[in-house]
Amino acid sequence: MFNWKLYIVVLIGFAIILSGFYINPIPIIEEDPVLETLNQPPVEPVIVREGNIVKIEMTAQVTNVEISTGVFYNAWTFNGTVPGPIIRVKEGDTLQFTLNNIDPNMSHSMDFHAVQTSPSKNFVDIMPLEHGSFTYSANMPGVFMYHCGTDPVLEHIANGMYGVIIVEPKDGYPTDNEVDREYTIVQSEWYAEHDFDAFLDGSPEYVVFNGNDFTLKEHPLLAKVGDRVRLYVNNVGPNKVSSFHIVGAIMDRVYIDGNPKNMLYGLQTVMLPASGGAVVEFVVNEAGDYPIVTHQFNDASKGAGAVLRVTADGLDTGD
Amino acid sequence: MFNWKLYIVVLIGFAIILSGFYINPIPIIEEDPVLETLNQPPVEPVIVREGNIVKIEMTAQVTNVEISTGVFYNAWTFNGTVPGPIIRVKEGDTLQFTLNNIDPNMSHSMDFHAVQTSPSKNFVDIMPLEHGSFTYSANMPGVFMYHCGTDPVLEHIANGMYGVIIVEPKDGYPTDNEVDREYTIVQSEWYAEHDFDAFLDGSPEYVVFNGNDFTLKEHPLLAKVGDRVRLYVNNVGPNKVSSFHIVGAIMDRVYIDGNPKNMLYGLQTVMLPASGGAVVEFVVNEAGDYPIVTHQFNDASKGAGAVLRVTADGLDTGD
Amino acid sequence: MFNWKLYIVVLIGFAIILSGFYINPIPIIEEDPVLETLNQPPVEPVIVREGNIVKIEMTAQVTNVEISTGVFYNAWTFNGTVPGPIIRVKEGDTLQFTLNNIDPNMSHSMDFHAVQTSPSKNFVDIMPLEHGSFTYSANMPGVFMYHCGTDPVLEHIANGMYGVIIVEPKDGYPTDNEVDREYTIVQSEWYAEHDFDAFLDGSPEYVVFNGNDFTLKEHPLLAKVGDRVRLYVNNVGPNKVSSFHIVGAIMDRVYIDGNPKNMLYGLQTVMLPASGGAVVEFVVNEAGDYPIVTHQFNDASKGAGAVLRVTADGLDTGD
Repeated sequence: MFNWKLYIVVLIGFAIILSGFYINPIPIIEEDPVLETLNQPPVEPVIVREGNIVKIEMTAQVTNVEISTGVFYNAWTFNGTVPGPIIRVKEGDTLQFTLNNIDPNMSHSMDFHAVQTSPSKNFVDIMPLEHGSFTYSANMPGVFMYHCGTDPVLEHIANGMYGVIIVEPKDGYPTDNEVDREYTIVQSEWYAEHDFDAFLDGSPEYVVFNGNDFTLKEHPLLAKVGDRVRLYVNNVGPNKVSSFHIVGAIMDRVYIDGNPKNMLYGLQTVMLPASGGAVVEFVVNEAGDYPIVTHQFNDASKGAGAVLRVTADGLDTGD
Repeated sequence: MFNWKLYIVVLIGFAIILSGFYINPIPIIEEDPVLETLNQPPVEPVIVREGNIVKIEMTAQVTNVEISTGVFYNAWTFNGTVPGPIIRVKEGDTLQFTLNNIDPNMSHSMDFHAVQTSPSKNFVDIMPLEHGSFTYSANMPGVFMYHCGTDPVLEHIANGMYGVIIVEPKDGYPTDNEVDREYTIVQSEWYAEHDFDAFLDGSPEYVVFNGNDFTLKEHPLLAKVGDRVRLYVNNVGPNKVSSFHIVGAIMDRVYIDGNPKNMLYGLQTVMLPASGGAVVEFVVNEAGDYPIVTHQFNDASKGAGAVLRVTADGLDTGD
Repeated sequence: MFNWKLYIVVLIGFAIILSGFYINPIPIIEEDPVLETLNQPPVEPVIVREGNIVKIEMTAQVTNVEISTGVFYNAWTFNGTVPGPIIRVKEGDTLQFTLNNIDPNMSHSMDFHAVQTSPSKNFVDIMPLEHGSFTYSANMPGVFMYHCGTDPVLEHIANGMYGVIIVEPKDGYPTDNEVDREYTIVQSEWYAEHDFDAFLDGSPEYVVFNGNDFTLKEHPLLAKVGDRVRLYVNNVGPNKVSSFHIVGAIMDRVYIDGNPKNMLYGLQTVMLPASGGAVVEFVVNEAGDYPIVTHQFNDASKGAGAVLRVTADGLDTGD
């Protein structure tokens, strides 16, 4: 004798169990958000010149930064911004550098690509809430990346610890006298927040200029009709290369890695390795908006764009 | 007393339910293919020179193209082919360009990397079934990409709207007198058809030379023993860089982006950014088949190859 | 009347079934490991010079190699190592090359990027257990990749069949007299073992220098304080490009693809295409450990690193 009532009860019971499994097949254990997320207000860098000695004081800190409109990343930073402050010195300068680490949880460090020095002596970790001072020279001109070099380096860069140090050539660039405007653009990638597997995988959620996907579009770089514009560019990665391009322009001069001896002419697009720099120059003879992108267009679609607005008087006439 | 019959019936019932879930866990809703696919016959481009003025008329249109044997892509194109027509002008020429947009559904536009002009004035969208005319100069020699610049640019490039415009240097290349043969090769990627997520993801299904994976293998480029061969190359992407290489040859001259001032010597492989060009030259002293590839070999495996066939008389002796 | 005993029995039964499905939802069919894995002991290459003729004998063979500590790959190799032997000849030399294929299951071949010759004549397949001899010249200086060119090439490279042949320039490099130390570094990728889909996908499990992720870290390259160090570098891929960088150093001279005419100055990072080479030089003025990496830091995180140890006497003082 078949027990239909029992059959239906069991059927419904397992349907409930099953649907639960399918909606949420792997039980997720929520981490207890005991710790407040750290969000330290930006500390201004200190940069003081005395003769050919440049004293630089920077701060490793954890700060929320806006990477896309309304999207914030709890970043590891130099001085509370991503990228960190642009440093500009002259070939031959001595840098007296101090790193204050106010991150209470983590060691950080500073690797300046602009200096030639012993990494195991001068790029060493600064413990939480401590500081360290280092002296080295900047003897090679260029547009250099700097970044936290603490292990795992990928994590420190992907979380935001990078910037650019420009070392001006002692004798300048051959085109110095012709340049009317100059700007700095740093390309970088944002991955799923603090997700090391995503960093390793190398498919960024955002690729950005100067830290986010909106500032250089909403507030264009400006130039006047006829200006020669110079851009100091570095692609800090951490993972991708860049195909840097200005729509409507041809870069009549490109100095690879910013060294005046590495001159290329008439480029539509300049190849930047991860942590590769360039000084690029071009003339804008017509008014209008010139988009700046990486021509690896999936990365441009993920945010890596800026606008150069060229007007008769070089002022922003609004949109 | 245990009811074995009931147990077995329930067991089978749930086994059926379970297997159903596993075979098709997420119900798939098919989209209704209401619209006929557009497939417009190729319209010939018009290119007419009058002194140093070159009048160019091109057509934005939707046309099926064969990207692999028997595999068709409903492409957005210039003039019904992918890549679009090769344009060849001289440094200093004025281009009087007209774009006819016969795509009834979509705006398109033209961004020539060869010209220096205001994008917001001269690379603007042409509405469906309308046309627009523009005048600008080509003052920089090189092997330049052109492409549709309508937003989202990634979509228009990935769907096929690109080509190459060669601007010959006013005083030629230093090696002009030695060159016996010249060909143009355009590297590009094909993704899942009209799948923007696939474009963004950047893992192409095909990487091809001159639009498909078979033509330049089945119909080799030809040369004679002893010839100096020149290739005009551009990697239009949209997403990947290229490591351009000729098996069995060394490129004794490479002009980066096709500018005669950017000379490199003796390269095994030339790095091309997305939208980067080059003029490469090499001599073939022995008869045989010389494969041309990107040495990023997963891309070569996805189709990016050609054959240069070198024979005593420079004629194809068949396979 | 509800049969609670039966209900519980059925409940437990299905819980067991369900957990089984969840732990192992898709039944895995193990392949029967009938064939013994081949592991042929390394055969020494033979390299003999007679005047400007260099006789080279190499062996294609299948050998297990350690790619990470305790991780072995059943590699297809030249002479039982990955990379294969470094070959060093002079510009103008004639190479009399013999390839012995002792792999009983597979054809192999040799494509030297250093020679200009007919691939269909001189890079042809050598059948299992046969050998072939070829003569060609090395007339272009550089740091060239060599690799098996048998179809599918991607498979033969990804499985380990590559190395470097250095062709010294006839008149040397301008900096020859200043160089104190020189080393060779080959970057390459390891994917899931013998998994062609993984090769195609292009997300390597390891990216390595000189075949594995540990040797050049555990046994650093050595230099003395004040030394000018020269590295012969090639990124053999098969799929990725490289952003080659030395932490704490700036490459004051870079010869692209190792050609003395392709000089760049003061680079922080050099862009290497897949199968691209370079000669890079830099001076180390301070004692310490200088990491060498690709600055595409997900690849560095997957193993692509080395250490250059600089000491007062140039000897390894241990860790």
